[in-house]
Amino acid sequence: MAADWPAIFPIFSTITVAGETYAYPDDLTSEEARELWTGGSRCVVAVEDDEILGTSTMGPNRTGRGDHIATGSFMVAPGMQGRGVGRKLGEDLVRWAGEEGFRGIQFNAVVETNAGAMHLWQSLGFEIIGTVPGAFHHPEHGYVGLCVMFRPVGTGA
Amino acid sequence: MAADWPAIFPIFSTITVAGETYAYPDDLTSEEARELWTGGSRCVVAVEDDEILGTSTMGPNRTGRGDHIATGSFMVAPGMQGRGVGRKLGEDLVRWAGEEGFRGIQFNAVVETNAGAMHLWQSLGFEIIGTVPGAFHHPEHGYVGLCVMFRPVGTGA
Repeated sequence: MAADWPAIFPIFSTITVAGETYAYPDDLTSEEARELWTGGSRCVVAVEDDEILGTSTMGPNRTGRGDHIATGSFMVAPGMQGRGVGRKLGEDLVRWAGEEGFRGIQFNAVVETNAGAMHLWQSLGFEIIGTVPGAFHHPEHGYVGLCVMFRPVGTGA
Repeated sequence: MAADWPAIFPIFSTITVAGETYAYPDDLTSEEARELWTGGSRCVVAVEDDEILGTSTMGPNRTGRGDHIATGSFMVAPGMQGRGVGRKLGEDLVRWAGEEGFRGIQFNAVVETNAGAMHLWQSLGFEIIGTVPGAFHHPEHGYVGLCVMFRPVGTGA
């Protein structure tokens, strides 16, 4: 995984700078981004023919009395959308969270204009808990909502 | 503010160990708790006759394209509930967020069984965006929901 970072960072950087899907600072160094993306419980890369098509990171959403709910983040390499990479990574998160004994998975901030993500997560059993109005400043659409999404897993189902 | 920490930590510790309202680890050292509570943009204490009645911490809820929404956390000293301390601290957050140019305030995790907090925030103009089911493990009530709450401020109103 550590050896994969030089191949992950261009994906992270391109998507962050585009500014359409994540509220990360757009000026993180490779080292700062590495800590952010690989500092959770588990980081995954989707690989085909030695090429990284996407990556995910996951872990508990909160500490203490909230650590039984997992969360995750996903990036598909630019140009690799529409090939099912995000779905594979999402299915992997659901499986992992169940195996690890989490009771549910929460996404804290899905940009409401990110139609691909909204559709994908709903098709994987996530529901929109609510949408915080104007919480994301989209470079094209202006202030748009951030959706909290959730699905139970394992004993929480 | 730094000089107040020795008086704040017993409040933080008592409330965290009680485990009814925050998903913080319950075994933080004073130094770890200090970083967590005072590491935001601004930390406030409510004082009467040289006694600390409560404390709040506040800052941007997200980085980057989400940094126009503020968040905050609050603790009222045990035994000092019902004296309007939480309300004063909440009104201070709303005023501060407006002055700083935030467009709204989001609470990410209000425990749904915390009736005092739920009532207070709604009376200060916050709405429940949604409730994540079972996301908090309450020592008495078991798995209960965590509410996302929001109110606009300033230009976001």
